Amino acid sequence: MTRRRLRLGMVGGGAGSFIGGVHRMAARLDDHYTLVAGALSSDPERARQSAEALHIEPDRTYADYDTMAAAEAARPDRIDVVSVVTPNDSHAAICHAFLTHGIPVICDKPLCTLMQDARSLADLLQRTGLPFVLTHNYTGYPLVREARARVLAGELGTIRVVQVEYPQEWLAEAIENTGQKQAAWRTDPARSGPGGSVGDIGTHAHQLAGFVTGLRLESVAADLSTFVPGRRLDDDARMLLRYEGGARGMLWCSQVAPGFENGLRLRVIGDKGSLDWLQAEPNVLHLALLGQPMRRLTRGMPDLSASASHATRIPSGHPEGYLEAFAQIYTDAAALLWNRLENTPAGADAMLLPGIQDGLRNVAFIDAVIASHKADAAWTRLEV
Amino acid sequence: MTRRRLRLGMVGGGAGSFIGGVHRMAARLDDHYTLVAGALSSDPERARQSAEALHIEPDRTYADYDTMAAAEAARPDRIDVVSVVTPNDSHAAICHAFLTHGIPVICDKPLCTLMQDARSLADLLQRTGLPFVLTHNYTGYPLVREARARVLAGELGTIRVVQVEYPQEWLAEAIENTGQKQAAWRTDPARSGPGGSVGDIGTHAHQLAGFVTGLRLESVAADLSTFVPGRRLDDDARMLLRYEGGARGMLWCSQVAPGFENGLRLRVIGDKGSLDWLQAEPNVLHLALLGQPMRRLTRGMPDLSASASHATRIPSGHPEGYLEAFAQIYTDAAALLWNRLENTPAGADAMLLPGIQDGLRNVAFIDAVIASHKADAAWTRLEV
Amino acid sequence: MTRRRLRLGMVGGGAGSFIGGVHRMAARLDDHYTLVAGALSSDPERARQSAEALHIEPDRTYADYDTMAAAEAARPDRIDVVSVVTPNDSHAAICHAFLTHGIPVICDKPLCTLMQDARSLADLLQRTGLPFVLTHNYTGYPLVREARARVLAGELGTIRVVQVEYPQEWLAEAIENTGQKQAAWRTDPARSGPGGSVGDIGTHAHQLAGFVTGLRLESVAADLSTFVPGRRLDDDARMLLRYEGGARGMLWCSQVAPGFENGLRLRVIGDKGSLDWLQAEPNVLHLALLGQPMRRLTRGMPDLSASASHATRIPSGHPEGYLEAFAQIYTDAAALLWNRLENTPAGADAMLLPGIQDGLRNVAFIDAVIASHKADAAWTRLEV
Amino acid sequence: MTRRRLRLGMVGGGAGSFIGGVHRMAARLDDHYTLVAGALSSDPERARQSAEALHIEPDRTYADYDTMAAAEAARPDRIDVVSVVTPNDSHAAICHAFLTHGIPVICDKPLCTLMQDARSLADLLQRTGLPFVLTHNYTGYPLVREARARVLAGELGTIRVVQVEYPQEWLAEAIENTGQKQAAWRTDPARSGPGGSVGDIGTHAHQLAGFVTGLRLESVAADLSTFVPGRRLDDDARMLLRYEGGARGMLWCSQVAPGFENGLRLRVIGDKGSLDWLQAEPNVLHLALLGQPMRRLTRGMPDLSASASHATRIPSGHPEGYLEAFAQIYTDAAALLWNRLENTPAGADAMLLPGIQDGLRNVAFIDAVIASHKADAAWTRLEV
Repeated sequence: MTRRRLRLGMVGGGAGSFIGGVHRMAARLDDHYTLVAGALSSDPERARQSAEALHIEPDRTYADYDTMAAAEAARPDRIDVVSVVTPNDSHAAICHAFLTHGIPVICDKPLCTLMQDARSLADLLQRTGLPFVLTHNYTGYPLVREARARVLAGELGTIRVVQVEYPQEWLAEAIENTGQKQAAWRTDPARSGPGGSVGDIGTHAHQLAGFVTGLRLESVAADLSTFVPGRRLDDDARMLLRYEGGARGMLWCSQVAPGFENGLRLRVIGDKGSLDWLQAEPNVLHLALLGQPMRRLTRGMPDLSASASHATRIPSGHPEGYLEAFAQIYTDAAALLWNRLENTPAGADAMLLPGIQDGLRNVAFIDAVIASHKADAAWTRLEV
Repeated sequence: MTRRRLRLGMVGGGAGSFIGGVHRMAARLDDHYTLVAGALSSDPERARQSAEALHIEPDRTYADYDTMAAAEAARPDRIDVVSVVTPNDSHAAICHAFLTHGIPVICDKPLCTLMQDARSLADLLQRTGLPFVLTHNYTGYPLVREARARVLAGELGTIRVVQVEYPQEWLAEAIENTGQKQAAWRTDPARSGPGGSVGDIGTHAHQLAGFVTGLRLESVAADLSTFVPGRRLDDDARMLLRYEGGARGMLWCSQVAPGFENGLRLRVIGDKGSLDWLQAEPNVLHLALLGQPMRRLTRGMPDLSASASHATRIPSGHPEGYLEAFAQIYTDAAALLWNRLENTPAGADAMLLPGIQDGLRNVAFIDAVIASHKADAAWTRLEV
Repeated sequence: MTRRRLRLGMVGGGAGSFIGGVHRMAARLDDHYTLVAGALSSDPERARQSAEALHIEPDRTYADYDTMAAAEAARPDRIDVVSVVTPNDSHAAICHAFLTHGIPVICDKPLCTLMQDARSLADLLQRTGLPFVLTHNYTGYPLVREARARVLAGELGTIRVVQVEYPQEWLAEAIENTGQKQAAWRTDPARSGPGGSVGDIGTHAHQLAGFVTGLRLESVAADLSTFVPGRRLDDDARMLLRYEGGARGMLWCSQVAPGFENGLRLRVIGDKGSLDWLQAEPNVLHLALLGQPMRRLTRGMPDLSASASHATRIPSGHPEGYLEAFAQIYTDAAALLWNRLENTPAGADAMLLPGIQDGLRNVAFIDAVIASHKADAAWTRLEV
Repeated sequence: MTRRRLRLGMVGGGAGSFIGGVHRMAARLDDHYTLVAGALSSDPERARQSAEALHIEPDRTYADYDTMAAAEAARPDRIDVVSVVTPNDSHAAICHAFLTHGIPVICDKPLCTLMQDARSLADLLQRTGLPFVLTHNYTGYPLVREARARVLAGELGTIRVVQVEYPQEWLAEAIENTGQKQAAWRTDPARSGPGGSVGDIGTHAHQLAGFVTGLRLESVAADLSTFVPGRRLDDDARMLLRYEGGARGMLWCSQVAPGFENGLRLRVIGDKGSLDWLQAEPNVLHLALLGQPMRRLTRGMPDLSASASHATRIPSGHPEGYLEAFAQIYTDAAALLWNRLENTPAGADAMLLPGIQDGLRNVAFIDAVIASHKADAAWTRLEV
């Protein structure tokens, strides 16, 4: 059966945005969406020009998200879903606006900056039952899903240690003072929230580790640094982890690490084996079972799990990358949305989609990390 | 200025095709095309179903390419370009049909199977001046373009040795006898032409080496094998290379090499330095200058050439892959097509697009390789 | 000038020992020592047989170290130095015996298990001025010395973060209960001291980080685990680090990590660049300067520091390994011993030799780690 | 049982030699030899000084090899074996001198420069039955032996393709004109023989491929180059290979390839799997079986073959290197020599030692390569 393309709206993501373009490429790749409406910028002229460049019709080009939510909700050809790709501080209000108008949301991470807003959104979602997806895009990589499948199948035995790190180099100098837009809002507590590197990438690391292991982080002992003089948020964070059930771990995130472009890496160590995945080489997953040679699993090879095989487009040896993983989130979200339109139950892959629970846990994570740091690295529980 | 999306037609690429889907994802990624017409299969029912699945309107769903070429040429909203993604033996006739109706072509490689057809197409293109692109997609990788820019800038000095290889494993067993469609036509001389691995992937290797070095292959001394019993075309080929100007080299292509998923690799050795690029890790280019440490160049890093910086979408450390490189061919082709519509000269990046000359040289390459093999690896010149 | 071979004695290292054989190969490689005396085992018959196998004369084969120290000190051809390669708990007494007889010592790490013994040895060394070398063998790798030279020269700028890890897999199961001698004493608090993985390999990691950065560790916040049921010492440890001067870091050591054979790795991140060294590929050092491509420095290449060039034997591309690095400690110790015999000042390379200060700091490290762990990961200062 | 150390003599290897020092370290490492006699240089004063530096007694310091062979043969404590480490042109005469005096020989490769000399030595060895070892040292690496064991056990199935390469960079410029002694004799036909890169390193590549696969090379089609102006021997060679039994392959050796320090690499492709070994990372062997993930075999891991386990000293994860592999040749030679002294049959490991047959085949290889090149890359058989 051929399903119609879903009508997509977008808030944020106008000219100069990084993540807006990523969301659009991700939505296009597998051809399940068509972008028809947008409030792409808080600057009206930029919003208009950006919409025109994206072939959005003038009557669906909006100056603000409230107008858009109301107007779209009133149309017979209303958008099926809206993508929210603004800075962190505005996520909660925008999501709230669309959800209250009955429009499902795909929201960029992190969910929001305040726990009370996160809980309020969670309540709203529970009441409305609307689809809500948080783009923790690294969970869209097929070998991340393979890692999860193998851990949950018990191939590594009982998990003992989780080592996750996410070093970047791009904020090694104070480029926020040079007019670099991405750097400016990410180092501004008013827009980014209380976490700097912790909020921007530490949350990815935390979520990825939980996704792959199925474990819930219980408490952290954290040490934060702001290495670049004058910066107002942490730019490097190191922490000890305690998971429910007894697993232990460490997390390092940094935005001041020269030589690390986007070095997200997850290692999971169990009593029977270990896994190692590196975002820079996403088509490979190293699996070591105790007493056996390291095995190099690759995207597209035979005998991968259904969840990994599902999340790929082309044969092994033809590298897929970041955009394909991001597209997988959109593609699985499309299945979720169609299921709802058709009133059928969501499939297994939709169940893997990150959502409100990931958002809640990450806001709690940021809060616990900062509280621990202020308490001289005292063990601090995540309060969801 | 916002340009309208180009109207794309497609011949071949119906259900079950690998490369057809790749072309469509490539065309979609950067949002410069919209697929509006197709003759997607020689089987009418499959053609119809495939078109419907791709949201092509029934009145632009065609049963054969001749009808399509004529009908589209007659429409005011005719397609701007057609993609030809059928098996090799039909490329020449299909390209001929569209070009004679004045419709530009994006053709999958290799150009065709017979030198006389290749020359005939070249003549037609020269007469008509129509845009024609051959999807040697590996030239779309930014670090392949970086390699070319550095070689042509003289950074490696005089090129001495070219080492290029393209091993795959997928035909290590006789899967063409199991109903695998891709394997069946690629091992059938009637559809694939006289070269097996030589035609399918040896041509990519030959073209890539020429693209990066700017050198023309003068002659080959080749040894072909058909290792899988009963197979009718070569499945492994090894050859010595002599380039115009004195460079020497080797080329290995294989489709029977377990452990090699899609192992295209190019090494270029000059008197001042060498380069190494591996398709499986396409975001990296290793550069060694004599007496200096090996440097690891990465997509998106500062100080890359304009041609490499142009051919990327997202920041360094966020891997791009095969589909993005393929999309770059489509994106540069779009620029070429727009330039023509607007009557402006083609830009520098369009000049990098592989086209009829690459096609001609590759047909000559296949012919020379086979002739050399039949002459017991005697040195044999490429006759274009 | 040709110098005579130094006369070497050994305590411990009889049949079944791992590290004894390593010390002997290390002493032989560069031909500066000849093994002439030994008390190789506390079991007299094993001591005798081991000595015979090593061509040690019967009259210099001793049943215990006290007898050996006294007898050797009385000979005109007395040993120039003794190597102490017994389990940790006996180091202090053995070192004390030889030093009080005026015989220099090369002692396996860690120095000893109790701080009071460490201080007592330090006092004795200060009084006697005798050479004393602690075999932190990883400092013998040329690229470790290169790393140190570059950090101290300021190439990385101000050090911000130190990431050091040392995972192993060999104790992932309770092999200490199977008669494995190495595992038995290393998991026995009476012989190994209070630290398990912390003492055995965490000390290497701590010392290596200090050697390369020149920084002194100020305090730790540590979380220890004993994952294998019934084990009496930690087998996995994770900790946050604070260095004097403001650098921060993390240290992970584990002996229960499947897939990690001997995974010592050090990354040093400064505000101008970073370094990455992995013991499993010891001939390579990755150097990333901000805004420049990663460079791959290799043993034997031009333009390395004098300290790195000094510490190698054969050309680049011919891998050296663990034994060569260990031999470098012996070779630099030989220079120190000859300097003393000839009454000349020690050279620059001898100054790099790990010694009593490294020993003291590592005993303090173990004590601080354990104290921090007991205090729920509270920040705990190293008290030397 | 403790065996006495073997008495070793050496011809060549005085001050300034590279390979002489390597042989001595190799002989020392496992403590089976003691160097007692030498004719270390054709320059008498250098011979004397070199001997003194090596603690060789004056009465066993010889000015020439003839005198040495006669004098040693007449001593009751005569040397058990002599190492020949001179330039290639003198190997035959020196070996002949010692063998005719009944003294076994360890000879550096290649055996000699003329086939008639090689055959004459082979005859002499057959008549005398004396031990003779050729130091194709790369066969001493444990994972090379593992590769051989797996190929011979049929794990890869029928071998289809052999890809072997040995690129180096050190002769990329005409350093033979700068007084560099190693470069001078290796580029001098009078001392090196008719092959340049072919003789120096191509022979290693040819021998290694034969060792691992057990296949005999039948014929070659070769293209040689002398890229550095004024050089008198080839510095880069590329060739197609045909093995007895139907396997095919390619060999590249180069001494003008910037970025390649000592890049010996062997890939063996069979119908069931493939192997990949790289000398720069000698502790790793990659094994890919058709349809299974790549496996990373490492030195010292469980389940390696007896021949690989025998050829290592320290646990996995503690890298061994070039000197250890070279030492393995000496250690296996010691077993061979002791067996002879004790009149017991040689063990399995001694059977792996490269010897006169390897020498003969390599002289034939050089001759065939050069003949093929002169005949415009015509297929040319090896004539042993």
